[in-house]
Amino acid sequence: MTDAYVDEGLRRDGHQELPLGPRARQTRATILKAAADAFGANGYASTTMADVATASGVSLGTVYQYFRDRADLISVLVRGRVAKRMNQAEVGWKTQDGVAGLERLLTNFVAAYAEVAPLAAVWEEVVHVEPALADLRRRLGRQLTDAVARELGRAAKAGAVRSNLDPDITARALTAMVDRFCFVTYVFDPPEAGPPAPSTAARELATLWADAIGLRN
Amino acid sequence: MTDAYVDEGLRRDGHQELPLGPRARQTRATILKAAADAFGANGYASTTMADVATASGVSLGTVYQYFRDRADLISVLVRGRVAKRMNQAEVGWKTQDGVAGLERLLTNFVAAYAEVAPLAAVWEEVVHVEPALADLRRRLGRQLTDAVARELGRAAKAGAVRSNLDPDITARALTAMVDRFCFVTYVFDPPEAGPPAPSTAARELATLWADAIGLRN
Repeated sequence: MTDAYVDEGLRRDGHQELPLGPRARQTRATILKAAADAFGANGYASTTMADVATASGVSLGTVYQYFRDRADLISVLVRGRVAKRMNQAEVGWKTQDGVAGLERLLTNFVAAYAEVAPLAAVWEEVVHVEPALADLRRRLGRQLTDAVARELGRAAKAGAVRSNLDPDITARALTAMVDRFCFVTYVFDPPEAGPPAPSTAARELATLWADAIGLRN
Repeated sequence: MTDAYVDEGLRRDGHQELPLGPRARQTRATILKAAADAFGANGYASTTMADVATASGVSLGTVYQYFRDRADLISVLVRGRVAKRMNQAEVGWKTQDGVAGLERLLTNFVAAYAEVAPLAAVWEEVVHVEPALADLRRRLGRQLTDAVARELGRAAKAGAVRSNLDPDITARALTAMVDRFCFVTYVFDPPEAGPPAPSTAARELATLWADAIGLRN
């Protein structure tokens, strides 16, 4: 799959792959929106390309002009809606921004997660059925943990965090904490009284994260 | 499903449910072991009751005497092998045992997780396809986070941990950290050099957990 296909979209006509004009871009966006809603409402396994066509108000042939299959659809959705925001939120972590900076990043992350909760649930489901998407998830996860581990290693040397921490284990543990907290709290098993506001959750997560590594203000 | 069925096992003969003699207990254990291996090797979705029968060296009818369906099999496996150890490991958490006590608990937890890694992977998969098992998972998860939240609330009042922490969010976050770290590290995406020894991982996780809540030695 070419990057242009993922980021900008292409349309297939026979063996040709065509760039999108304004109208085709609109059609593609409509299909993506309908697919996100359908996957979110019924789960990945129970949603067919025909369901997506019906929900989009276009023909099945039209859906196939824009997307190879369901895996292609969910991959584009995840890259566009989940991965990009999550990476924006966390790869930019710098210990020098202190606890307040960390809280800002985590607030963005948690808010984005809560907003796309139905799609986040599909993202958890799909890695068990589509090996290519499991690979995508591993890649995105590694990108994130590697960035956090590098920053932790740098900060430990500079004395900005606890000097005896293991950057790799710590990076995996803290990113796992935030990611899984969000899944359990906003998707899988919200508290009876409703999930906490993202800003409340992010403040607590930022404090736990900062104290866990000995981050000074 | 009766609890006797889950814990001790029963055998169905026509409409009768019979308690197990020594030989039947052995047969049931053989089927469970073969099922754990088959689910672990091929995933839940790709493993049929007939596959389990073949792997156990018994007839399909015999498998159905002991287990209603695949969901029944995985439910018994999870309760027996995953849930029991995990709960032993963590529900018993007492802040008065200090960082060393926490490290002992987490070492047990991580070692048990690493040992049943293939089954842990199935446990992640199955909640997306079997609503009854998703409920079981929610119940077990709640049991754990509620116990941790109670202990945190108690310890915060007693001044044994940071006084301004939110027990519920913190309990969800820290149990999520340990659970997800184990899944990513021992199942989904182990480091290229191989996963860390459970004792190494547990020492780091215990330090992060303890520092996050301000637990004194």
